[in-house]
Amino acid sequence: MIAVLSPDCPLRDKAEIVRLVEAHGLRVQVSETGDASLVAVIGAGPDELAPIADALRAHPAVREVRTEAPPYALVSRERRPEGSRVRVDGTTIGGQEIVVMAGPCAVESREGILEAARVVADAGARLLRGGAFKPRTSPYSFQGLGERGLELLAEARAATGLRVVTEVVTPEDVPLVAEHADVLQVGSRNMQNFRLLSAVGEQPRPVLLKRGLMATIEELLLAAEYVVSSGNPRVVLCERGIRTFETATRNTLDLAAVPVLRERTHLPVIVDPSHAAGRRELVPALALAGIAAGADGLLVEVHPRPEEAMSDGRQSLTPDAFAGLMKAIGSVARAVGRVPAPPVRPPATGTVGTA
Amino acid sequence: MIAVLSPDCPLRDKAEIVRLVEAHGLRVQVSETGDASLVAVIGAGPDELAPIADALRAHPAVREVRTEAPPYALVSRERRPEGSRVRVDGTTIGGQEIVVMAGPCAVESREGILEAARVVADAGARLLRGGAFKPRTSPYSFQGLGERGLELLAEARAATGLRVVTEVVTPEDVPLVAEHADVLQVGSRNMQNFRLLSAVGEQPRPVLLKRGLMATIEELLLAAEYVVSSGNPRVVLCERGIRTFETATRNTLDLAAVPVLRERTHLPVIVDPSHAAGRRELVPALALAGIAAGADGLLVEVHPRPEEAMSDGRQSLTPDAFAGLMKAIGSVARAVGRVPAPPVRPPATGTVGTA
Amino acid sequence: MIAVLSPDCPLRDKAEIVRLVEAHGLRVQVSETGDASLVAVIGAGPDELAPIADALRAHPAVREVRTEAPPYALVSRERRPEGSRVRVDGTTIGGQEIVVMAGPCAVESREGILEAARVVADAGARLLRGGAFKPRTSPYSFQGLGERGLELLAEARAATGLRVVTEVVTPEDVPLVAEHADVLQVGSRNMQNFRLLSAVGEQPRPVLLKRGLMATIEELLLAAEYVVSSGNPRVVLCERGIRTFETATRNTLDLAAVPVLRERTHLPVIVDPSHAAGRRELVPALALAGIAAGADGLLVEVHPRPEEAMSDGRQSLTPDAFAGLMKAIGSVARAVGRVPAPPVRPPATGTVGTA
Amino acid sequence: MIAVLSPDCPLRDKAEIVRLVEAHGLRVQVSETGDASLVAVIGAGPDELAPIADALRAHPAVREVRTEAPPYALVSRERRPEGSRVRVDGTTIGGQEIVVMAGPCAVESREGILEAARVVADAGARLLRGGAFKPRTSPYSFQGLGERGLELLAEARAATGLRVVTEVVTPEDVPLVAEHADVLQVGSRNMQNFRLLSAVGEQPRPVLLKRGLMATIEELLLAAEYVVSSGNPRVVLCERGIRTFETATRNTLDLAAVPVLRERTHLPVIVDPSHAAGRRELVPALALAGIAAGADGLLVEVHPRPEEAMSDGRQSLTPDAFAGLMKAIGSVARAVGRVPAPPVRPPATGTVGTA
Repeated sequence: MIAVLSPDCPLRDKAEIVRLVEAHGLRVQVSETGDASLVAVIGAGPDELAPIADALRAHPAVREVRTEAPPYALVSRERRPEGSRVRVDGTTIGGQEIVVMAGPCAVESREGILEAARVVADAGARLLRGGAFKPRTSPYSFQGLGERGLELLAEARAATGLRVVTEVVTPEDVPLVAEHADVLQVGSRNMQNFRLLSAVGEQPRPVLLKRGLMATIEELLLAAEYVVSSGNPRVVLCERGIRTFETATRNTLDLAAVPVLRERTHLPVIVDPSHAAGRRELVPALALAGIAAGADGLLVEVHPRPEEAMSDGRQSLTPDAFAGLMKAIGSVARAVGRVPAPPVRPPATGTVGTA
Repeated sequence: MIAVLSPDCPLRDKAEIVRLVEAHGLRVQVSETGDASLVAVIGAGPDELAPIADALRAHPAVREVRTEAPPYALVSRERRPEGSRVRVDGTTIGGQEIVVMAGPCAVESREGILEAARVVADAGARLLRGGAFKPRTSPYSFQGLGERGLELLAEARAATGLRVVTEVVTPEDVPLVAEHADVLQVGSRNMQNFRLLSAVGEQPRPVLLKRGLMATIEELLLAAEYVVSSGNPRVVLCERGIRTFETATRNTLDLAAVPVLRERTHLPVIVDPSHAAGRRELVPALALAGIAAGADGLLVEVHPRPEEAMSDGRQSLTPDAFAGLMKAIGSVARAVGRVPAPPVRPPATGTVGTA
Repeated sequence: MIAVLSPDCPLRDKAEIVRLVEAHGLRVQVSETGDASLVAVIGAGPDELAPIADALRAHPAVREVRTEAPPYALVSRERRPEGSRVRVDGTTIGGQEIVVMAGPCAVESREGILEAARVVADAGARLLRGGAFKPRTSPYSFQGLGERGLELLAEARAATGLRVVTEVVTPEDVPLVAEHADVLQVGSRNMQNFRLLSAVGEQPRPVLLKRGLMATIEELLLAAEYVVSSGNPRVVLCERGIRTFETATRNTLDLAAVPVLRERTHLPVIVDPSHAAGRRELVPALALAGIAAGADGLLVEVHPRPEEAMSDGRQSLTPDAFAGLMKAIGSVARAVGRVPAPPVRPPATGTVGTA
Repeated sequence: MIAVLSPDCPLRDKAEIVRLVEAHGLRVQVSETGDASLVAVIGAGPDELAPIADALRAHPAVREVRTEAPPYALVSRERRPEGSRVRVDGTTIGGQEIVVMAGPCAVESREGILEAARVVADAGARLLRGGAFKPRTSPYSFQGLGERGLELLAEARAATGLRVVTEVVTPEDVPLVAEHADVLQVGSRNMQNFRLLSAVGEQPRPVLLKRGLMATIEELLLAAEYVVSSGNPRVVLCERGIRTFETATRNTLDLAAVPVLRERTHLPVIVDPSHAAGRRELVPALALAGIAAGADGLLVEVHPRPEEAMSDGRQSLTPDAFAGLMKAIGSVARAVGRVPAPPVRPPATGTVGTA
């Protein structure tokens, strides 16, 4: 049960409401969300809730009591029927423009990431992706360059004007990653790392939340609710394929998630065709399908020389293939009433150049 | 192991080759495929096969011996790199045109199917779908009108010029369905009903083979190989969603199957967004995504009054929604270098009319 | 909606009830089930059903009208809370005894099946399994010996006293298989071959119905309802593994299906550990787990020389391993309050047949 | 590629070997595992590795170079064919005794956990389970009592002699949980929280590692390898059900994982029937099946009054049902050549001890 308080509810009233619930022996969780305070009554059965619901409804500071609300009250479409837009400096995700984020799986070297950044900026991407902290299935695989990787991403941003999205894998790294990146990515394996969700919810950078390969759409929305209820409304969701019995692809891209999420949440939705496909040959078809299904953008792996990549080279597009794909994305975007975002402008004093 | 014989191989040579294999105590299966005879050696281990392979290679009528061939030799892309086209009277599936097949889940009444046919013909469909024999999970559900349904479909064809695709569920019904329908559909639950696959392979009508909701792409190709190796090369494949853990949709549409099938087989591929979605609201997004992914056509459920449908009404588009979708399909088709097939022309003496 | 008629309902009343429903413009399906006639009203919505339900309840021959009954009224536990037993000559499945059915995947030769039969009979099996008609994923794989295989199975029965269970893959083969076999198996791929379900329901031999590898428990029960509503109450269910993302085993044995089926249906349940495992090393652990979970029996692949098997040799137990397993089955059976069925007695001095 | 160094390899040699690899421009990860040092060369392709492999093999401190080893070198069965045993004070997991861990899903109150502890100790459990930190899908669900919960668990241990297993959800909590608990549980959702795996690997308490609900067996082994390669060899694996299409149970218990893990790893394996089942009615059948399949123990949810539980009450056994189950476990254990562990002895007159 969630009580929605008036935005101008004084602290005194809020404390009173909390005490009112606690007097019934129940726990309370308060979330501030910009335009409202939410008081969630936690872990009680319907019998216990009925009298409290009445008492809350009777309190003048309580605007509404939701007993049957979807369990993701903050991110549900009802709350913002027009949809929300997430701004990353000059780029808007969730508006009419299709926003493409591209780059290598992992930051591997200074030259590599700078070259990748130039390539994807030239082709029309708006954000640079690249992992500095890599969650790897085996302890013996390359785990990323860590802080050094973050610095290189920042350098690539300075050189190209691209904004940077990169993964954070544990709560204690959140401040460090937030210092260097523009968007913090929570990866598939961490979609239900609830401490991490709270941690990225307590800082101001936008969050790119990838669906777990084992997660239902409902669980993805609840994960987003963790972030938003921790104070950060700037969340972008990402469909990236789920695990099924089919082995012809790495994962099964669930494109129905795009219209389903559109119905249920106001948050923007993008698609990652690379991890779903697992092979670059399949990426363009899935990328275009994602746009046709209504996605607000794409997350695509591109590597200057995929055959040399330390991870996921098999699914990375070559620069040429990516440039070709970007043209096709423009065509499909227009066919469904969208437009491709214009290329980033290189920084004014951009001595590093864009080749 | 498969031996490919020259197309002009005399019967005498063929018999000799069969005897050659049987002399080793092994079984043989011969398939005639229009441009070649295939002699498959069945159920033997590698040790037994080696000497036979040598003997076969030495025979002048044997063009090629495949020991490591993909197990779906006839439908594999290698066999016809340019892709094959399946013609249904004036309509070509697998060419540049996007072909839409539409109609109700089941034929329910004369008026209903005639109205549905006019609606989908007017909006630009080329084929009318509608079940006369319905495989239903419960024995107490409506199982279709049977032969009467087939007659009504034929009447709708006469009235509109649409061609008819309808399901056949058991080998003994194949002659009857082939008498009335233009395309025989093998449904998802029968994708591995091997006797049925052989039976539709032994008659000349094109076959629409739907992927089983539990089947891998490899198994779909092997099912197609059953049909083609029985003598009928006119097969169209259909991706219609697989069963996964996600419950927000009826099935999970695996659009990666489209480019994967494109790589592996020369057969045309269409997409059924209706059964995957399970709710009409999701159908347009998935239909457009299917075209963007490279499908050659769509199979869409449309009902004049979905709320009255005896089955699958929840996933059937209204006539208006279908007409809107057809326009959008045209736009996306052009964005990916295809064109929508032109509407059917009503039959010259069409006294029944097209409203 | 299903109306249950008194067992002694005269034909005249039955016809009257059918007309009563048809007068409302609805379809009817009548099933005779030994102790009752069921009249199912098909394909109607709740609004149409309400007045008919009232009329039916008012008719003296109608014992009960089920509007909210589980869709598998005949096989549901409620109908026979004490559980039903399926008798195959001297063997009872679903009683206190654990019944083991064993033998090779396919009948391959006279010597082979006779040897296999002796081996499994000596170790304590009650039924001999072996495929004469094999549904195979590839058209080029060994498809079984057909009628000759059935004759060899009958010969093995005569020699050992084992009863025979073998698969039937298409309706037209049902009479032939029923002539030679004691139990007709409907395989996993045919669990929703509804015509086949009806066909085995219209003959008197017991039916072993295997769960489809992507079928829910509910769908398995509805498949059983097809058989029973066609007139044959002697059905044994078999859990044999479902398809999941895990690739370490051929399928994932869903042993929870055993207690779930126990709750929902009165039909006996056995477990096939061989197809689930896909490797003989795993079979004993899964077989014992099946008994501990409450199964009434097992279906186990055994081959005198697994390395020479034409199919599924990898998952077939050797004779020694099977004999060892049978001892362990006895121990676990007793630990859970069951007993192993005693070995079959060989026929008196080889008089062929005990029919 | 992993180089295994002699256990008595001097630091000087180790440093030399690390430099040798780094001189080729590659990264190195060193793991100390009690009886060996492992030097893993990270993120390089086969071409780069070949010359290094030769150089490593030539070094006298290198006992072995594994290029084709299973990627979980430390936990693989080959490394310890006799199996490893994990000791928790007086209890041994992985020996002949079946060890049962039982208790409520979450610690809810002092009285509740003390009562639960007495109940499960009386029935024969050796460890008390109970969550103080609960990972919950919704931010509005009860998240556990935190540190207070840990203190109550310690009090229950003092009162009963049971050892305590409880979940840790984030690296920074590891020291706190390790202070109060005897075994640290890594839950299903955190199976690939690699930082957490490293953190529990860097402390000395045994670790109970639960399989992710969408993790392959291979991934579970790699997760265990993270823990062991971080320095802690005391890991117990737990099968608890995977996510599939079946909705009749909460998850699908994959009991084949027990014999598969037995083949591949020397680590002990237990089974959690409660989370797989999702309903208490199914728990006994699955628990017994787990023992019959070869598990070394069980993790069972028990609640003094399940209907009042704040989480997972539906799947918690009542005290009576648990006592009955423990007897049956004893019978099945003996049938498969194991014995139930004897009950814990209560501490002498409440001296708060650890016996």
